Amino acid sequence: MAHSDAGTENQHSYIANRTKDDYLKRLRRIEGQARGLQRMVEEEKYCIDILTQVSAMTKALQSVALGLLDEHMAHCVVNAAKEGGEEADIKLKEASDAIARLVRS
Amino acid sequence: MAHSDAGTENQHSYIANRTKDDYLKRLRRIEGQARGLQRMVEEEKYCIDILTQVSAMTKALQSVALGLLDEHMAHCVVNAAKEGGEEADIKLKEASDAIARLVRS
Amino acid sequence: MAHSDAGTENQHSYIANRTKDDYLKRLRRIEGQARGLQRMVEEEKYCIDILTQVSAMTKALQSVALGLLDEHMAHCVVNAAKEGGEEADIKLKEASDAIARLVRS
Amino acid sequence: MAHSDAGTENQHSYIANRTKDDYLKRLRRIEGQARGLQRMVEEEKYCIDILTQVSAMTKALQSVALGLLDEHMAHCVVNAAKEGGEEADIKLKEASDAIARLVRS
Repeated sequence: MAHSDAGTENQHSYIANRTKDDYLKRLRRIEGQARGLQRMVEEEKYCIDILTQVSAMTKALQSVALGLLDEHMAHCVVNAAKEGGEEADIKLKEASDAIARLVRS
Repeated sequence: MAHSDAGTENQHSYIANRTKDDYLKRLRRIEGQARGLQRMVEEEKYCIDILTQVSAMTKALQSVALGLLDEHMAHCVVNAAKEGGEEADIKLKEASDAIARLVRS
Repeated sequence: MAHSDAGTENQHSYIANRTKDDYLKRLRRIEGQARGLQRMVEEEKYCIDILTQVSAMTKALQSVALGLLDEHMAHCVVNAAKEGGEEADIKLKEASDAIARLVRS
Repeated sequence: MAHSDAGTENQHSYIANRTKDDYLKRLRRIEGQARGLQRMVEEEKYCIDILTQVSAMTKALQSVALGLLDEHMAHCVVNAAKEGGEEADIKLKEASDAIARLVRS
């Protein structure tokens, strides 16, 4: 899964293979939670129990987001910072906007 | 879809059939977003783009939660309030805890 | 501090005197945190330490909000629910909007 | 307000003087909001109106936090990234923890 198109290389994910599997596992679990919620609504489970599951799923998603952000900063932002110039500014602005979206969502 | 077990009747969802389909549709879309995120991680998409999708999914989940909470308050909490007594206190405490979990997640 | 203007009585706070002092104490502490933050910025303290204080202050504010919301629901919303009619709908809509603002902020 | 103690220099705020005044102004406004909230509780204002003010104040605080974080990343994290080594790792970990606290609060 190497990306040889150097021009857009920095537009690729910096997720290490080791952690990639971990993210996929966590996202599959989140997908399962979404299906579980449908079943709960279908079976008319108690609203409060559904809401508890929604909160758990939101926390799981948030945790994935924070992990991805960490990897992005440790690789993409740090590399851009070393090179400096406009690219560094762009990467910082992107990261900052992503953080603001996470904080506000 | 009637619930004849009167004893636990108030433990059932108060989601109207009209809105039930709407919730199922929204949860299926959220499930699709979880699958889309797996694809993005698999294909090593750019982290920032993945994070944007996570934020969108979190917002969609939050919106489902607020909708469910509204229905719960409009039916379950209001009915318990009318009857008063210990049941009203329990329902209020439950709703309050669910709100705190949503605010803090 | 009795409110004799019956017409708008339900537009008043339902905060019990016992808890009123508690809220005032917590809000004074939050005001102190805001002053502490100014001092930290003035003295050019380390950003991360300032951010830690901002997070603590946000949590304190959130906790005040959840407490106020609980009291509002236990009194104002419950009373309106008992009376029923349009007033109950208005109170529920107001509470629901306030919850959404808290969840999204 | 120069900091000559080079050893801890990187433990100081990287807030530019231009923006420092802006942060102080915003924090004074937030302090004023905290006092306004005390007045509202004192005068037994309507709970929903108090909650609206709490949400506004939380948003103002969040916005200060995101601004401080941006400056911290643009200066402190970027400088540490350029130097590399253990210091870069420490700075990244600190920033990542601060972001997690903001997202979760």
